[in-house]
Amino acid sequence: MTSVSLIQGASRGIGLQFCKSLLKRSKDATVIATCRNPDSAEDLHKLKNDYPASLHIYKIDVTKESEIKRTSSEIAKNFDNLDLLINSSAILHPSGRGETSLRDVSSEGIMNTIAVNTAGPLLVAKYFTPLLTKGNGSFGLQDSEPKKKHAAVLVNMSAKVGSITENGLGGWYSYRMAKTALNMATKNLSIELGRGKNRVICVSLHPGAVDTDLSRPYHKNVPNLFSTEYSVDCLLKVIDSLKVEDSGKFLTYDRTEMKY
Amino acid sequence: MTSVSLIQGASRGIGLQFCKSLLKRSKDATVIATCRNPDSAEDLHKLKNDYPASLHIYKIDVTKESEIKRTSSEIAKNFDNLDLLINSSAILHPSGRGETSLRDVSSEGIMNTIAVNTAGPLLVAKYFTPLLTKGNGSFGLQDSEPKKKHAAVLVNMSAKVGSITENGLGGWYSYRMAKTALNMATKNLSIELGRGKNRVICVSLHPGAVDTDLSRPYHKNVPNLFSTEYSVDCLLKVIDSLKVEDSGKFLTYDRTEMKY
Repeated sequence: MTSVSLIQGASRGIGLQFCKSLLKRSKDATVIATCRNPDSAEDLHKLKNDYPASLHIYKIDVTKESEIKRTSSEIAKNFDNLDLLINSSAILHPSGRGETSLRDVSSEGIMNTIAVNTAGPLLVAKYFTPLLTKGNGSFGLQDSEPKKKHAAVLVNMSAKVGSITENGLGGWYSYRMAKTALNMATKNLSIELGRGKNRVICVSLHPGAVDTDLSRPYHKNVPNLFSTEYSVDCLLKVIDSLKVEDSGKFLTYDRTEMKY
Repeated sequence: MTSVSLIQGASRGIGLQFCKSLLKRSKDATVIATCRNPDSAEDLHKLKNDYPASLHIYKIDVTKESEIKRTSSEIAKNFDNLDLLINSSAILHPSGRGETSLRDVSSEGIMNTIAVNTAGPLLVAKYFTPLLTKGNGSFGLQDSEPKKKHAAVLVNMSAKVGSITENGLGGWYSYRMAKTALNMATKNLSIELGRGKNRVICVSLHPGAVDTDLSRPYHKNVPNLFSTEYSVDCLLKVIDSLKVEDSGKFLTYDRTEMKY
């Protein structure tokens, strides 16, 4: 089946891998990749050479609402619908290091992390909702009950450290707060976009401990680090299995439901 | 027993009532009230007339880290310790109305709400931690086990709508995200300030549906609205009952533990 996906935060890490994996697994896949700075997104341009007709690159800095709005209008002129939206933009902290204690907590650090990891994804969801509600339901499992069919899937890339219940270590104030707030955004989106007949399934996903630029400084403490390929393979299996009743959930790469 | 409390966001609503109730219940209570604009805080000045020696008013705009830092230094010159810190500053949304749908969601609305409701309280916690760790343990129940004694209590005023698990209605994007992020801050603080021997018990409290400026536009939907006096009486009973093992919890005015 043909499909149109938009991957926000696609220049590297898990976002880039979603572009690669989606293009690889189906010749009928169209992928719209957005990132803050396409000019320096070398890996995306390499991928564009391999998939010139299927991959489309747009500039979106998620901290600029006017840019999200403008680019979403441009994309809406070129595409009729979206079947999948993945919000993957994230920073650990503007300094590159998560706070180890209150001493490291700053207004600037909190606000910048929330802008990229929380407000940005929610604003992207806002401006692409009109295209998502026109989706063809190419992702997720369609219910046999016609009233429970869905148009599209929206994924917010979250993280296990965004679970308040599971937080036993502390630290990483900004990142943890941003991801738990993003989980709330997902829950709210699942309610608002779960009404009517053009439903959008909305989930928060935890990718596991993955080898990316964001997590690299912390690798030495992680026993079983996933490659981005493996993590995204798992996440796509979860996405393929989603039904309307899963909307709002916080799921791991192996489909375990997380507590908030 | 003498006690020193700091109420942040004390010009009105629940914060103001905490000042009144603490001063009323003990002649040995010292209350430090902070708010964004003391010049226009008429109710606080009226209270100061009744308790000229026990109430101390300082200016803190929680969106300005430099002001929190400067005022905390000034307070540290005048007071040796804090036994209780209550973070009560909150806005529903800069517009005064919570978002009813994605249409109302804006970058400015999200960021301003998080600045006042989440980043501000965490930064206040950061700069007053040195005074809290010198507290005399006047609030909460001291454990008979000397190793489990605590120095002070830190309360972040949260709200039931900040529970992702309990969110069945959606809407109020900014406020919900801000309060769930604040709950994560409380959990992180409980871990960091639960180490060593000068422990600070940290909790998130839900005040019930209370008659305040913040909630007034929504009163018609609330069957059993609390007065601020009643809510704060209940919250003080909860605070008086806290033990070290309660640190990190999200509790309601009637001491029910909320899911995150």
